[in-house]
Amino acid sequence: MALTLTLDAHDPETQARAGRMETRHGEVLTPAFMPVGTQGAVKTLTPDELTAAGADILLANTYHLDQRPGVDVVRALGGLHRFMGWPKAILTDSGGFQVLSLAELRKVSDEGVEFRSHLDGSRKFLSPEEAVRIQDGLGTDIAMSLDELVEAPVAPDAARRAAERTVLWAERGLKERERLRDEGRGGMALFGINQGGVEAAERRRCFERLGAMPFDGYAIGGLWVGEERSLSLDMVEHDCGLFPEGRPRYLMGVGHPVDVLDALGRGVDLLDCVLPTRNARRGTVFVSTGRLVVKNAAYAADPRPLDLECDCYTCARFSRAYLRHLFAAGELLGMRLASIHAVTHMIGLVRRARRAVLEGRFREFREAFVERFRSGETLAPSGAA
Amino acid sequence: MALTLTLDAHDPETQARAGRMETRHGEVLTPAFMPVGTQGAVKTLTPDELTAAGADILLANTYHLDQRPGVDVVRALGGLHRFMGWPKAILTDSGGFQVLSLAELRKVSDEGVEFRSHLDGSRKFLSPEEAVRIQDGLGTDIAMSLDELVEAPVAPDAARRAAERTVLWAERGLKERERLRDEGRGGMALFGINQGGVEAAERRRCFERLGAMPFDGYAIGGLWVGEERSLSLDMVEHDCGLFPEGRPRYLMGVGHPVDVLDALGRGVDLLDCVLPTRNARRGTVFVSTGRLVVKNAAYAADPRPLDLECDCYTCARFSRAYLRHLFAAGELLGMRLASIHAVTHMIGLVRRARRAVLEGRFREFREAFVERFRSGETLAPSGAA
Repeated sequence: MALTLTLDAHDPETQARAGRMETRHGEVLTPAFMPVGTQGAVKTLTPDELTAAGADILLANTYHLDQRPGVDVVRALGGLHRFMGWPKAILTDSGGFQVLSLAELRKVSDEGVEFRSHLDGSRKFLSPEEAVRIQDGLGTDIAMSLDELVEAPVAPDAARRAAERTVLWAERGLKERERLRDEGRGGMALFGINQGGVEAAERRRCFERLGAMPFDGYAIGGLWVGEERSLSLDMVEHDCGLFPEGRPRYLMGVGHPVDVLDALGRGVDLLDCVLPTRNARRGTVFVSTGRLVVKNAAYAADPRPLDLECDCYTCARFSRAYLRHLFAAGELLGMRLASIHAVTHMIGLVRRARRAVLEGRFREFREAFVERFRSGETLAPSGAA
Repeated sequence: MALTLTLDAHDPETQARAGRMETRHGEVLTPAFMPVGTQGAVKTLTPDELTAAGADILLANTYHLDQRPGVDVVRALGGLHRFMGWPKAILTDSGGFQVLSLAELRKVSDEGVEFRSHLDGSRKFLSPEEAVRIQDGLGTDIAMSLDELVEAPVAPDAARRAAERTVLWAERGLKERERLRDEGRGGMALFGINQGGVEAAERRRCFERLGAMPFDGYAIGGLWVGEERSLSLDMVEHDCGLFPEGRPRYLMGVGHPVDVLDALGRGVDLLDCVLPTRNARRGTVFVSTGRLVVKNAAYAADPRPLDLECDCYTCARFSRAYLRHLFAAGELLGMRLASIHAVTHMIGLVRRARRAVLEGRFREFREAFVERFRSGETLAPSGAA
């Protein structure tokens, strides 16, 4: 097995669970929030800062890395872990989402996706086999199957066609991994991605076929792309109800603190999102009590840390006033310090949720957090926080 | 005394010297290269990274900090050390250079400099007294006297007028510090700046007056502004020959490795320059064997560190190929990692020069470094370095 999941606890009142996922690059405590290193770096941060933030897994983007510097370069340099100096687990996406959102002139067929690179306009083709080969070449610990994503709102028959193609591609990806394994490669875990939009019946139909395949885990795809939040959460609950108990469940692209806790309560083990760090680079961070727009002039003389309850490097050492100054002055250190807090905060939130599951009080934890967060958002400047 | 210098050794063959400068915020080994934190941050770096690089003093820019966030904000937050989280020594410039290079509609009179802020166009006035008050408000360890700088090439009589005004302002700055001390403030050291362009006679005349004033140290001003390098070095040697033995000598704005060693050999104790870090942010770093343009495609698959002889975090952990990728991909981490090397390299070079002085072999050290550096610059890509 390329990956094993040991479940330590189930919350008595929700579907939340706590476990440990063993990968080729160490143990990952679940649930886990994965920082996103799109281009082989979590923007502005070093591997050591991610470790200090508590990360034991991160996500890297196959499409970006294959475009630049190229999988051959990464492989020649010893694989992605060595290339980026990250010794712990890496999950890569399939590249499909980026092909469909960034590349130009894309044409999807049963064979795969034809597209032009957003960097140099060169013609490329991504098949489900190639997606697996690239991820293997990067040396990932957890690869994702190529899937077809459709944007909301989507007609039921379009969702069905995408789901059918996703199933077809899933089979071919698994076969390619088998072929690689015959060659002594392909040692990574491979996850299938369930699709079907917000049609429960469609998602069920999709999973009837995916669930019969020997995937190491399953992802919940095609949500948080424009549809209503409550509907998304229903689909998360629906999919988790279908997924096998003993394999990790990964909800893609969800990173708002409240969404994260709602997803955990429905049985999700892994999440990733660029939202917290992207916001941070723009001068807004999530804190225990809400959302804090630190670049605002209101913080210009505020001696308090970003988050009074946080013990990250930034909160331990610097004031809101200093961060506000760095943003006002265009100093990159501001982005860095805010990113350190953002990553630490999200990983810490999920880690605290894990502890709550272990102690059988996840529902209470979630409710207390959400109530406080909702009342505090957006924080009143100075004095009131 | 706000500052004491203890000299441990003089090189037998040059004017180079090694010592320890005691400040209100700790001991500074001299000679010392000071990283520049223009706006209250050495661009992209944290205080801890500067400490790891070996820094025990840095420079901050009075003009920038007074413009934004303002000296009152910094003082209310406990002073610049606390504001930026830097516990060691800080030297501030007077603000004069920036007023004369950045501000608009500046008008210089014996009273001071009238100008418009480059940020908001507001009308300001910087007098020699105000320059001292602002630096005191920031809580600096070493303040600089307001001086008038003229650009090369400059007519002898313009250089003389500037030198005369500099002397006048120096007296007034010292008086202001006395006044502050009567109020229980003004505890910082204050350096006078010698001017006179590249006219030895003018510089001598300027120093005849400055040298009679109770400054804690002296700076060599008005050089490296367009004139010939050999002439600048002559002026450095000239000034150091006049300066009192027991006080620190600061050569402003010089940071090319070869220039730095040439200046140390003429008796300089302190230097600062944005060049190494500015270059680094643009993808070029000084290394032991020359100058390395790491953003070049030639390094795309080079597994070696930036500098094979460097033990900084960047060189210990990352390849040229990774840095090249980060620059190509526009990842800010590239600027950071290159800056870490740049600061470590410059501080390390000066620290090694210090050791050479202590061991009586500075001339040999300088010659070996320069010969190697000159032959290696710019490094041939891959294989040849």
